[in-house]
Amino acid sequence: MTATGPVAILGLGLIGGSLAHDLSALGATVWGFDADKAATRHARRAGVIDRVIDANLRALSDAETVVLAVPVDIAPVLLEQACARVQHAALITDVGSTKRRIMQSAAALGLSATFVGSHPIAGDHRAGWPASRRGLFADARVDLCRTADTGSAAWKRARALWRSVGATPTERDAAMHDAEMAFSSHLPQILSLAFAGTLSSRAIARSRLGGGGRDMTRMAASSPAMWGPIFMENAVPLLDALETCLAQLGALRGAVARRDRRALQEAFAAVQAWTANKT
Amino acid sequence: MTATGPVAILGLGLIGGSLAHDLSALGATVWGFDADKAATRHARRAGVIDRVIDANLRALSDAETVVLAVPVDIAPVLLEQACARVQHAALITDVGSTKRRIMQSAAALGLSATFVGSHPIAGDHRAGWPASRRGLFADARVDLCRTADTGSAAWKRARALWRSVGATPTERDAAMHDAEMAFSSHLPQILSLAFAGTLSSRAIARSRLGGGGRDMTRMAASSPAMWGPIFMENAVPLLDALETCLAQLGALRGAVARRDRRALQEAFAAVQAWTANKT
Repeated sequence: MTATGPVAILGLGLIGGSLAHDLSALGATVWGFDADKAATRHARRAGVIDRVIDANLRALSDAETVVLAVPVDIAPVLLEQACARVQHAALITDVGSTKRRIMQSAAALGLSATFVGSHPIAGDHRAGWPASRRGLFADARVDLCRTADTGSAAWKRARALWRSVGATPTERDAAMHDAEMAFSSHLPQILSLAFAGTLSSRAIARSRLGGGGRDMTRMAASSPAMWGPIFMENAVPLLDALETCLAQLGALRGAVARRDRRALQEAFAAVQAWTANKT
Repeated sequence: MTATGPVAILGLGLIGGSLAHDLSALGATVWGFDADKAATRHARRAGVIDRVIDANLRALSDAETVVLAVPVDIAPVLLEQACARVQHAALITDVGSTKRRIMQSAAALGLSATFVGSHPIAGDHRAGWPASRRGLFADARVDLCRTADTGSAAWKRARALWRSVGATPTERDAAMHDAEMAFSSHLPQILSLAFAGTLSSRAIARSRLGGGGRDMTRMAASSPAMWGPIFMENAVPLLDALETCLAQLGALRGAVARRDRRALQEAFAAVQAWTANKT
């Protein structure tokens, strides 16, 4: 990692906490802020952060890198609060599952030159500091988005930051990122929620499921504090994804209702070709 | 296992092949039939079966236990073909994901006294002899269904058979089994298919998914030869499950469209209570 100055991580949940674990293990100076004082206390005691950042965020004036690792509705608010203190940071980045809004916020605050949007594809259904761990980003993809004015120094720092923890940075356009995530990540979250809600409504316990059913309910246990704002912010692409999936489900329901085995075989065949394609 | 005579397994796929692996490792005499000659040849060479059963099924006259391990539309046909030869078997059972139809077939063929419907909850998206392996049933639940006339000797043999391979037999009513499976197993199979079909329709590759999205597509790679007949046979309960889930999805879509964060939080909360309940 090229950063030699302090890395301030705002939010010590699964992603922020895991980044703190990895960076401190690499010898970086890591400072941490979390609204939950238990999280910063545990991180400090574990030696994962060198310093607790107070709610006044004053310490950010001395941070070289600032990472926003909070829910997507909090990140712009926190960035605005921190705005005066992070003018001299070499890199400001985030980790959210949606990228357009935080990029717009950074631009509106005049922070475009040092801002890079990051989204490590490394989340799971567990949340908070207790879920954080070393090695979370190993072999993970990280989508990186430039603002119109992101400087090459900040860009290089962002790539180096994620590479240092084993991730593979990939450049993405923010709007394209958000549109794809609606299908690849936000839609399955909704499907898992609907499936678990269906079982719950019929009092079928999770223990009754086989491996396939359990796979399909895992995401449903995710944090609503994280997901609610993602759904709100990415509502338009998400509704597109939902409509597309509901059309698929409607076609499958029709095939079952008509006892149309050929239509079902074709649905499986279409998906098997997709499944077999590793690219 | 109490069986001392030969166990004939008809169908050496994931379930039948794995049962053959376990029983032969326990020292049982295992005979195998499969329409795919490569499967029986490999099973014989691996020493997993002691004898290949020919398509005329004559060998079944000397089998003490007969296990139907073929797709649910094939099992009744095979049972009818084998009917004259299995009159003296002490136990006839199957492994299908639907139980009403095969139980009715056994009754219609006058085989009720020795028939027990079995459904080991141990499937996964892989299929065929190459996917079969030792230990598949360890700690798995096996739902067992009695016909109106199942004798206690056959019932005890069925329990002992599954216990011998590490599974836990649980008695279930066939109709209740099929209704629950529509929700717990057949519905998530359809959801996974619809989700994979959605991604495929937008040319979003599987490699773009995170862990949650990958979980949600795993079932989609399952065998259509196995699932098509299950959907056909269990269409009525499956349509009930689909309607229930579509109503849940519709409510979630409405909440996103209205930007109704409270409704989303409530959906997560309802499911979190269900997820936390381990029973």
